Amino acid sequence: MRYHKIADETIRRMPIYLRGLMALSQEGHQHISSNKLADHLGIAHWQIRKDFSYFGEFGTPGVGYQPEVLLEQIRKILRLNCNHKVVIIGAGNLGSAIMAYPGFHHYGFQIVVAFDSDPKKIGKTICGIPVKDAAAVHTIKRRKIQMGIIAVPPAAAQQSADALVKADIRGILNFSSSYINVPKRVKLIDIDIAMDLARLPYYVSA
Amino acid sequence: MRYHKIADETIRRMPIYLRGLMALSQEGHQHISSNKLADHLGIAHWQIRKDFSYFGEFGTPGVGYQPEVLLEQIRKILRLNCNHKVVIIGAGNLGSAIMAYPGFHHYGFQIVVAFDSDPKKIGKTICGIPVKDAAAVHTIKRRKIQMGIIAVPPAAAQQSADALVKADIRGILNFSSSYINVPKRVKLIDIDIAMDLARLPYYVSA
Repeated sequence: MRYHKIADETIRRMPIYLRGLMALSQEGHQHISSNKLADHLGIAHWQIRKDFSYFGEFGTPGVGYQPEVLLEQIRKILRLNCNHKVVIIGAGNLGSAIMAYPGFHHYGFQIVVAFDSDPKKIGKTICGIPVKDAAAVHTIKRRKIQMGIIAVPPAAAQQSADALVKADIRGILNFSSSYINVPKRVKLIDIDIAMDLARLPYYVSA
Repeated sequence: MRYHKIADETIRRMPIYLRGLMALSQEGHQHISSNKLADHLGIAHWQIRKDFSYFGEFGTPGVGYQPEVLLEQIRKILRLNCNHKVVIIGAGNLGSAIMAYPGFHHYGFQIVVAFDSDPKKIGKTICGIPVKDAAAVHTIKRRKIQMGIIAVPPAAAQQSADALVKADIRGILNFSSSYINVPKRVKLIDIDIAMDLARLPYYVSA
């Protein structure tokens, strides 16, 4: 089943709902109202109801959502109800930090291989992940890996993206802080940590 | 001037608008419609107009927004029209990657000092930023720094947050992938890179 014409912004919020529901579910809540979820997440309740409405009716009016049912629905929508292998390019500080990141398994992600062009890094293992020669990115093609993370310096970003696209990667998370071009069939998500920091002064300035 | 009761989600999108406008402005556009901005950013045009409406009227109907004027307005709203000093706790792979991140100066941010508890790191300089003993976080109090970044392993996250709060930090960007508690007067933004990755399967799965 594919859901069409869902705004990127709605899809962006779905993992936030997922994480919030996981936390509230662990606290033992049997039913969760959209107001409670809204308070927990800092997202407007009308926004939550609007987002969920794209995917049909999840909750019972006056009773709320059952977190377990909703979690399963969201996982299905986001296709997180199966495991996904991921490849990373760049095994420097940023790549190493991403490989060490403990949160991926919650969503069924497993980084299976890293690539780097630095001979000192090639052949090493970081957090159990083998680091291979960046010239060999094409070898992942036969492993049917669909997602790639770019964690290289800006100057190497486009080249890394090109290699991933040639290896039939369908989705890229770009941490390089450089704009990259990919064909339309490839979904690109740019991560810019400065934009997260840019939200803070609004709240903290006197 | 303070604007009240603006949803966190709107504030979260403002730096995205800022970045998009900077890019479109550099391309030489004199006027930008909300439709063009929407296409560029993958955010619905009604959402953009709704967000901007919280802050008054920016554009001219039928003509669109002047990017330079809009950029200045958004910088003012987000209080990015002045420089901000930032402190970071954690000078490992993640902290080092953040310190090396080239995008902060676009928003007027400068990381001025790092703290770590590892004697091997204390005294070093990373990307021009001195690394000091984590036991000395309180010394930033007299420097009137308002924002802190936490880039330590999960087990050290709460302790780092406590130290920042004691040093009168007003806003925290938490990369530790651990939940932390801070007083209500402190704005906390949690960064979870797994949630960004969690958006990809929706787009790439066959």
